[in-house]
Amino acid sequence: MAVKQSPEPVNEITLRRLPRYLEYIEEQIEQGETYVSATQMAKELEVHHTQIRKDLAAVGVGGVPKRGHPAKESARAIRDFLGWNDTSSAFLVGAGNLGRALARYEGFKDAGFEIIAAFDNDPHTHGSRIGKIEILPMEKFCDLVRRMHVNIAVITAPAHARAEIESLIERSGVPAVWNFMPIKIRVPEGVVVVDVSLYSSLAVVTRKLHERLLKQK
Amino acid sequence: MAVKQSPEPVNEITLRRLPRYLEYIEEQIEQGETYVSATQMAKELEVHHTQIRKDLAAVGVGGVPKRGHPAKESARAIRDFLGWNDTSSAFLVGAGNLGRALARYEGFKDAGFEIIAAFDNDPHTHGSRIGKIEILPMEKFCDLVRRMHVNIAVITAPAHARAEIESLIERSGVPAVWNFMPIKIRVPEGVVVVDVSLYSSLAVVTRKLHERLLKQK
Repeated sequence: MAVKQSPEPVNEITLRRLPRYLEYIEEQIEQGETYVSATQMAKELEVHHTQIRKDLAAVGVGGVPKRGHPAKESARAIRDFLGWNDTSSAFLVGAGNLGRALARYEGFKDAGFEIIAAFDNDPHTHGSRIGKIEILPMEKFCDLVRRMHVNIAVITAPAHARAEIESLIERSGVPAVWNFMPIKIRVPEGVVVVDVSLYSSLAVVTRKLHERLLKQK
Repeated sequence: MAVKQSPEPVNEITLRRLPRYLEYIEEQIEQGETYVSATQMAKELEVHHTQIRKDLAAVGVGGVPKRGHPAKESARAIRDFLGWNDTSSAFLVGAGNLGRALARYEGFKDAGFEIIAAFDNDPHTHGSRIGKIEILPMEKFCDLVRRMHVNIAVITAPAHARAEIESLIERSGVPAVWNFMPIKIRVPEGVVVVDVSLYSSLAVVTRKLHERLLKQK
């Protein structure tokens, strides 16, 4: 896979900003622009322009004085850096509502991300499909991770399945886990885990709402 | 509502950490601890202890030398600060798979967050239920936001519904939006919007995975 190596590891907060830059830059390209201005981008995305320049430098793109950052090169560099020019195949674990929503989520393909099979404990689901994706018995997970060289497990199991999931991840040797469970999980050292904590996001909603309501009083 | 006012506004990155502190502290309380150690917490949560002390000070709790932070007081302060001791009623817009998953999401109640009704464009869904939540026609949204004093709209509509959603938010006057759509939306000034961008989270998964795969080569 063509992945650019950065001189220094880029922190998670920067990584989280990159998709927003990419979206903005690709919009500009569609509108026929060949350069993007960090100053303009800063206004649009509400990130300081110094930060934007620093983040783009981290993925290997510099600006040209008075012109800005070359649009196509910048978009390509971000995609290379994130590995979004390659296809990342993933297995879904848990075919409930959340799993089904993710399997059908619009736009993952644009990030090279593809869920290629789903696994569930419920025998009633086996053999049925979510769109094109087949739902298979959990027992097949470990074997298929190895045989199909799948690198990402997307976990949407309920909290009480924690022990089973931890064991599954360990036995399968899958190198990365995108965790949508409402709890943290323990995995073997070296396994990448990214939690999608809805609580973190909810904390921002409720606090900002309350700051707003206080202002009105 | 009992919300503590902080001397300075707390930034979003700090807000996102608070639910993790709360979870840890409440686990310690359950295990019978009366004080929590910022140093111990730092190890467990992989956040620097200076940062933890600073964050807890921002919500109004200080440590006691050689004992740590009082556990119950700290938990209560975080909950007050986030408004999680009160109930936040929310309306769900979009009763597809993602909407259904959120309506059934385990543990929102623990954050005082409750989805009390769902709205959808599809007449076939009207009158049916997701658990206890009724699905209503979109036309009823604005009126019910006002009559029921609902402060949060949880948006799970597809991207192509953007214009309709923006108009709905403006007309309803709802003060906060938790946006699960795969795109940004424009709202009137003063409306709180928090985007749950799956792309940001995915960027962390794919980049860290690729850093790991590079290391093995």
